[in-house]
Amino acid sequence: MESKEISQAVISRLPRYFRYLGELKDEGIERISSQELSDIMKVTASQIRQDFNNFGGFGQQGYGYKVEYLYEEIGKILGLDQTHNLIIVGAGNLGQALANYMNFERRGFLFKGMFDNNPALYGKKIRDMEVKPMEELQDFVKENNIDIAVLTIPKTSAVAVAEQLVKDGIKGIWNFAHVDLNVPKEIQVENVHLSDSLMKLTYNIIRYEEENNIKK
Amino acid sequence: MESKEISQAVISRLPRYFRYLGELKDEGIERISSQELSDIMKVTASQIRQDFNNFGGFGQQGYGYKVEYLYEEIGKILGLDQTHNLIIVGAGNLGQALANYMNFERRGFLFKGMFDNNPALYGKKIRDMEVKPMEELQDFVKENNIDIAVLTIPKTSAVAVAEQLVKDGIKGIWNFAHVDLNVPKEIQVENVHLSDSLMKLTYNIIRYEEENNIKK
Repeated sequence: MESKEISQAVISRLPRYFRYLGELKDEGIERISSQELSDIMKVTASQIRQDFNNFGGFGQQGYGYKVEYLYEEIGKILGLDQTHNLIIVGAGNLGQALANYMNFERRGFLFKGMFDNNPALYGKKIRDMEVKPMEELQDFVKENNIDIAVLTIPKTSAVAVAEQLVKDGIKGIWNFAHVDLNVPKEIQVENVHLSDSLMKLTYNIIRYEEENNIKK
Repeated sequence: MESKEISQAVISRLPRYFRYLGELKDEGIERISSQELSDIMKVTASQIRQDFNNFGGFGQQGYGYKVEYLYEEIGKILGLDQTHNLIIVGAGNLGQALANYMNFERRGFLFKGMFDNNPALYGKKIRDMEVKPMEELQDFVKENNIDIAVLTIPKTSAVAVAEQLVKDGIKGIWNFAHVDLNVPKEIQVENVHLSDSLMKLTYNIIRYEEENNIKK
């Protein structure tokens, strides 16, 4: 595919297309028009066509899109036909939950290791993977060609750990620490700031009540 | 405050302002100019002024903003001066992680209960709260004035559970189930689709490598 600047807004919508197309495929649906896709996804058909045009369009409008083809093409764009070596740094509740929760392997994410600085956790097995001490992190990343680090450590240590991971050759960070990391632009970061998301929810609840004069 | 339509993009940035201001406050900093705030937050000073103007501006530009005042005002806008009764539906790894992980109480979120349909979990204590069977959910929500439900259940049951919660009087859903819920517009939903976020990360890694001709 030709290299072209595609907005992060478009990119943010790709996983959602991928998810809906996967469900359609599982239901045995072979073709879908942009209008039908629009109805189930609650975005406009014109938005869908615009988004897809960023990637060449994916098919004839008159006949609709071939579901399986579209699913696979979007999967390729998202890099899901490749494998990514992944580690989790921080073996607390959230790190363990992510290790157990995600269908990593199904999407090409190879779970290679888990690290923590709490000796009580060393050797604990999470999905057949022993928690290793942080002292081993640096060598492990260098020796195992790790692409992605999931950071589920407190914000006080996250910035320094991220800097070290960058030096050791990591390409991307999935950051759950409640802090913005300061890494070079060639390192991709995707933040999941959970409490930011919860605050946005309460904002919307309160605003709706105010606008509609609903008493608590 | 007067009711005014404020874009979700602005609202998405409020928790981040709140977070940075909290840190400045903890460091004992009393005043900050929009330019200084711009430097540490890496958004333009003009963006900051525009965002704040949605809420009346918060202070004189020449002297800068009073940090503590601004922190408290944004906290109020986010509803953090109020309390919100919250339950977690789904006591698996992720539900337990959220229960343990979040400083709920510090922000006015009162953790009232946790539910699951797995009998092996009934009675298990998570932060002094026993996991209850799903059969008790409906009465519990009605009797305890629950505002927010955190959904950490599989997507197959999430849509039906959300519909029931809406009937029982819930105001907002913090949705971790990997599905878009179908609820009336008076119900606020904040989605955390974790695998969407991870896919966006791999997209950006691959695209960066392609654009810079980096071989895997």
